Amino acid sequence: MKRNGKPLRPIWLDDGGRTVGVIDQRRLPHEHIVRHLATVDEAIQAIREMIVRGAPLIGVTGAYGMYLAARTAAPGARGMAALEHAAARLAAARPTAVNLARAVDRVLRRVLSAPDERQRSDLALETAAAIAEEEVENCRRIGEHGRPLIEAIARDHPGRPVNILTHCNAGWLACVEYGTATAPIYAAVEGGVDLHVWVDETRPLNQGARLTAWELGRYGVRHTVITDNAGGHLMQQGRVDLVIVGSDRTTAGGDVANKIGTYLKALAARDNGIPFYVALPSSTFDWDLTDGVREIPIEERDPDEVRYAEGWDGDGHRRVRLCPEQSAAANFAFDVTPARLVTGLITERGICRATASEIRRMFPDKIHQRGLRVVD
Amino acid sequence: MKRNGKPLRPIWLDDGGRTVGVIDQRRLPHEHIVRHLATVDEAIQAIREMIVRGAPLIGVTGAYGMYLAARTAAPGARGMAALEHAAARLAAARPTAVNLARAVDRVLRRVLSAPDERQRSDLALETAAAIAEEEVENCRRIGEHGRPLIEAIARDHPGRPVNILTHCNAGWLACVEYGTATAPIYAAVEGGVDLHVWVDETRPLNQGARLTAWELGRYGVRHTVITDNAGGHLMQQGRVDLVIVGSDRTTAGGDVANKIGTYLKALAARDNGIPFYVALPSSTFDWDLTDGVREIPIEERDPDEVRYAEGWDGDGHRRVRLCPEQSAAANFAFDVTPARLVTGLITERGICRATASEIRRMFPDKIHQRGLRVVD
Repeated sequence: MKRNGKPLRPIWLDDGGRTVGVIDQRRLPHEHIVRHLATVDEAIQAIREMIVRGAPLIGVTGAYGMYLAARTAAPGARGMAALEHAAARLAAARPTAVNLARAVDRVLRRVLSAPDERQRSDLALETAAAIAEEEVENCRRIGEHGRPLIEAIARDHPGRPVNILTHCNAGWLACVEYGTATAPIYAAVEGGVDLHVWVDETRPLNQGARLTAWELGRYGVRHTVITDNAGGHLMQQGRVDLVIVGSDRTTAGGDVANKIGTYLKALAARDNGIPFYVALPSSTFDWDLTDGVREIPIEERDPDEVRYAEGWDGDGHRRVRLCPEQSAAANFAFDVTPARLVTGLITERGICRATASEIRRMFPDKIHQRGLRVVD
Repeated sequence: MKRNGKPLRPIWLDDGGRTVGVIDQRRLPHEHIVRHLATVDEAIQAIREMIVRGAPLIGVTGAYGMYLAARTAAPGARGMAALEHAAARLAAARPTAVNLARAVDRVLRRVLSAPDERQRSDLALETAAAIAEEEVENCRRIGEHGRPLIEAIARDHPGRPVNILTHCNAGWLACVEYGTATAPIYAAVEGGVDLHVWVDETRPLNQGARLTAWELGRYGVRHTVITDNAGGHLMQQGRVDLVIVGSDRTTAGGDVANKIGTYLKALAARDNGIPFYVALPSSTFDWDLTDGVREIPIEERDPDEVRYAEGWDGDGHRRVRLCPEQSAAANFAFDVTPARLVTGLITERGICRATASEIRRMFPDKIHQRGLRVVD
């Protein structure tokens, strides 16, 4: 995605390779703040505190975090132990997205295989950059494969925009470029399709209202922010043609862990006969899992994210308490949408149904990734 | 409900009958502000701006609004025309709850039938007070009829609390006393049942996080505030035993208009085999309607309620913008849960299934209310 002709990404190598630059996504759209991560600890913090977020992007950040660790690792066995320790800590920074553990693991293996330990840092950087470029290419392809779904609806309903509902932010901010759920949208808009996006605000951290609305606005895509409560009503009233969301972890059977509330939208889509698609690079598949509701670990975050809302009050970023001082809150970050509610998975290789056999048929070569998980 | 031994209600006659006192529900729980309504215009404003809210309470406020109009109405035909005009304006202040139009209509008819026009004001007051007392008694009975549902779950699961999920505020603040959805909860707690309530925050105006949490906390009922996105996940994980919500308008066939997002929780309850009950006084039935999704008018409110969140920031009540300045928003206040998703209706006469025949059997005498609607 370009701004003033220059590509803008949420992560990049900076300071001649000494730091990794990221956009602080906690402050968007109100403030555009860049942070420079110089150590693996800063990378862990950026992931945990959601300075960066989105499954593909936290994978890339984890990979660059390994590069930052490799830059300063001691020689010999002590350095290798430090890198393994860094990998375990990075992989544990957030539990739900499988991309993180997998990307970190990939860099670690590459570094472990270095014939000369002076190459560690170069190999880590090369691998991190390769992961980033693969995510970009995957998202570009997801856009190409998903675009015809939108074009078909446009053909069936001439004279009015195609109405697409999305939850959370599975845009380029979450993915380096294009996004996952947004890639078909951007591709369709570029192809001249008249469309409009219903943007779920996505409490508690409002990634929809803050990030998806900002992205779409930036690229001139017509959109309307709604509360997370509103999607069912809009579907009942015939005002949604298609739902597209992203995924943080997808089982081998097609169960999808995504931002909390996704499951509710999938139920409403099924109740109203509306197609519900999940756009995901295959890096979010966890080939070891078959029962998403039972097996995918769901992160529980600080209850204050629920007790408070953050926003802009004219002269600054501020948070306000919503509930009584004494009331407890609970903050589950994801839920699992069972495969039976998913119309199809839009992947970098094409669209398949959310069944074990169709997923296997599309990714026969990925089965070897079973059991590939960082040791922690 | 009592505070320091004195009953506390969200509405009462004050200033020796010159004003109607109400708690400003926009400011709770952060500030306890009382407003005194002295004119019908102030009553309309209180309803429209949600100083008072909740179907039963806006019905009672509408009735007291007619009293305020009657106090100052001119004699003769001019006064009667003014009262009819006031009734139409009050009934139109909010479109979804049928209690409002019905309560206003009832006071108007009583006043129209006054043999001596000097009695208008007394008759209006008497009728408004009677409506309030009927709502209190209805809620008390809803509590008695609903309590055994909770007690049965407690018996089936000894040693752990009964987990109840509710959406929005259908508590005593919405209903004069006891509440509708909360009445069985308060009755069960008084009877010694160990229970815990999951409180949906209920964006955009957070009546759950603000009002339900405040009410429950005040009466020592254990509760946890969650985002509106979280209920489905909790149900999947076996952490919800029962859902109870209120209703703003219920069709003769059992379709339920309630706060936006209720429909999504009903879908999740059905998907997980969890009972979904609606607690309602029969004043919320609209006997003229059979297809709720098509026929119940859904109020669309100011988009800024979605674009902003309001809360307390330590020294004051403040609102913060959540989305980009340029992003549009839409704000649908209610949705309709089809009767097929409702396990049962908890009414002042007992529990019935949400079917036309069971509802008719429970309220054979109410059918005459068909077509009774204020002329507007």
